[in-house]
Amino acid sequence: MLAAHGGEAPGGDARGVSRFPFSAAHAQAIRVVAGWMEEAGLSTGCDEFGNLIGIRPGRGDGPAIILGSHMDTVPCGGIFDGALGVVAGVEVAAALHESGRRLHHALAVVGFADEEGHQFGVGTLASRCVTGGIPRERSALLRGRDGRTLAESLAAFAPGLPRCAFPERAAAYLELHIEQGPVLARSGRRVPAVSTITGIARTAVVLEGESNHAGTTPMTDRRDALVGAADVILAVRALARAAGAPAVGTVGALSVSPGASNVVPGRVDLSIEFRTIDGVRLRNLCAGMEAEIQQVGQNRGLSYHIGDWDLRDPVPMNEGVQRAIAQAIRDAGCEPFAMPSGAGHDAMNLAPHMPSGMVFVPSAGGFSHSPREWTDWEDAALGAGVLARTVVLLDEAGR
Amino acid sequence: MLAAHGGEAPGGDARGVSRFPFSAAHAQAIRVVAGWMEEAGLSTGCDEFGNLIGIRPGRGDGPAIILGSHMDTVPCGGIFDGALGVVAGVEVAAALHESGRRLHHALAVVGFADEEGHQFGVGTLASRCVTGGIPRERSALLRGRDGRTLAESLAAFAPGLPRCAFPERAAAYLELHIEQGPVLARSGRRVPAVSTITGIARTAVVLEGESNHAGTTPMTDRRDALVGAADVILAVRALARAAGAPAVGTVGALSVSPGASNVVPGRVDLSIEFRTIDGVRLRNLCAGMEAEIQQVGQNRGLSYHIGDWDLRDPVPMNEGVQRAIAQAIRDAGCEPFAMPSGAGHDAMNLAPHMPSGMVFVPSAGGFSHSPREWTDWEDAALGAGVLARTVVLLDEAGR
Repeated sequence: MLAAHGGEAPGGDARGVSRFPFSAAHAQAIRVVAGWMEEAGLSTGCDEFGNLIGIRPGRGDGPAIILGSHMDTVPCGGIFDGALGVVAGVEVAAALHESGRRLHHALAVVGFADEEGHQFGVGTLASRCVTGGIPRERSALLRGRDGRTLAESLAAFAPGLPRCAFPERAAAYLELHIEQGPVLARSGRRVPAVSTITGIARTAVVLEGESNHAGTTPMTDRRDALVGAADVILAVRALARAAGAPAVGTVGALSVSPGASNVVPGRVDLSIEFRTIDGVRLRNLCAGMEAEIQQVGQNRGLSYHIGDWDLRDPVPMNEGVQRAIAQAIRDAGCEPFAMPSGAGHDAMNLAPHMPSGMVFVPSAGGFSHSPREWTDWEDAALGAGVLARTVVLLDEAGR
Repeated sequence: MLAAHGGEAPGGDARGVSRFPFSAAHAQAIRVVAGWMEEAGLSTGCDEFGNLIGIRPGRGDGPAIILGSHMDTVPCGGIFDGALGVVAGVEVAAALHESGRRLHHALAVVGFADEEGHQFGVGTLASRCVTGGIPRERSALLRGRDGRTLAESLAAFAPGLPRCAFPERAAAYLELHIEQGPVLARSGRRVPAVSTITGIARTAVVLEGESNHAGTTPMTDRRDALVGAADVILAVRALARAAGAPAVGTVGALSVSPGASNVVPGRVDLSIEFRTIDGVRLRNLCAGMEAEIQQVGQNRGLSYHIGDWDLRDPVPMNEGVQRAIAQAIRDAGCEPFAMPSGAGHDAMNLAPHMPSGMVFVPSAGGFSHSPREWTDWEDAALGAGVLARTVVLLDEAGR
């Protein structure tokens, strides 16, 4: 079990898995998975960003079909998030290896080093690096929680595999992942293709009023930044609800200054995040929110600052790959359907460079980033089977 | 200037005064004020709680009239809060001394060691200790921000004065203080008696929902503790406004867990404080708030915990002392009036033990606990004059 290599908190117990990028646990997990890869007939190595790559040549000399997901977890995470897609990729390779079937395309299985963003504060970091989404000179200087730069962490990282290159050309990227939400489990369905990976817009807002004595300042004299923040929190929720599913809006971080029970809050810093699968609607949510904040400032006598929106557009999955996945679902005896992903995934960084698709399996109860994260093994196996069948269908179609 | 003895941040500049109890700055301030006291004919000492006491006997052997306020400040506070009442007390003693006038009562001037509660988290600590409001065995164990207990701080405190006792019997306690709010300055009046020191009810509330992925959790599935907190913040404000001035309600402290921009908040801890001058209304505000929180829990799918209310009843000032102050105001050529105090003061701890009264002077712009705190020197002098005249009136009346 990969989950046994979970750093401080071994998997399977109530504390969950904490496998951080470039840790000893990460190196150990790479060695374990590389062993499985070798058994499955893949030759293994690590690229310059610490990504584990197993590859076997195809009959032709065309580009590879890549299967993958990520090796790292959040602190006290579950055993499926990321690991499932890597292990399922190895299983697909093993099944092909055992059946003696040789594909036209090369087959690569990838375990990305850093997707959760826990160490360096950048989500899907490893797949962004490998696809040029972050210039090398900038990524090298990213500083982690342990005080070391990414370059320093990589230099010290010794998983004990030969250095190899990430496949430059690829025919497709396929990622099996848990949904991480309650929608799929509740739908009663088991294995959809992903239609689109959600767009995300995030900003930081500062509200400033006047810090004052909570006993001697009459209610009518107050410019209470926290009262304004309450308006903002409710407006974020109202806007997201008005936009309708799958749009969501969240204030997840908030701090009050000076933060004493007997002082009227003078300043509040808070985060705002919207997600939806339509780029125009996403921008409308941002614009609507700015108007709301202006209104709050006026009503409550506050000044405000809205940071630049960090906006990542929705990433639609490739139509041809989606069709192949739908066929594979049908071949597995299920009714094909597709759903958007509310979370970001490595696939969104690969999609601009190669036809990309994702397969979801349900998260029981919707739990993720938690020791309670769970997917029934039957569902996980079904997902891996759809992944394998999709590889065969894409291999045949791309011959 | 007492403000020059302000610890890390010398007074008069933009950083304000930071004179914390039992600090070197506090000891130095005690020596300076004790010097002034000696010049004013008072013999000086410190009691077992670090309170500075200057006393001169009266013609009779009756109890003392005590003038006082506190020596300590909040971090980066103003030069008037506390210091004014102590220095004015010394001025009254000096004026009597220079005029050769001997009172029937003894006269004591007190500088309480710790009123702001910054070091040990307990407001009006020194006057509570000295009046038995906190049993000695409990106060000794209070632990300060520097890690030392109150007993340890007191043992190490060496202001260099002989040990003396706080006057056991007293005819009256009088405290001159700045208002610390905008009401008096805005009224155009300059020097009122305080009618009542506000009651305060404070509690800590925990709201618990479910921490979840901000991308994959639909709006309709969320149990967002911060959305519930927004409802609570607005309800505190609405209840206080509905109760009418001088009632106030504040959420001053709030923390969000886990507190990441991409995670639905699972838990919020917040403070609630109500103040008003009527004990029944104060209890009604608490009860009303509990009903609101219950409603919020129901609406937002949250569980909640409301801590025990820390409720301090309003403390009316002594009628006879108020009448004497009113006469003194009239004698100073002003129209007598009275107003409540929205802040707590040492006088509220002394009031149950002796006839007590307070005189306010305006805070320009309403600023306090800030380097911007200001009272015009003419107003400060007028307040000191009213204090002096009140002493004479009480002395004559109590003969």
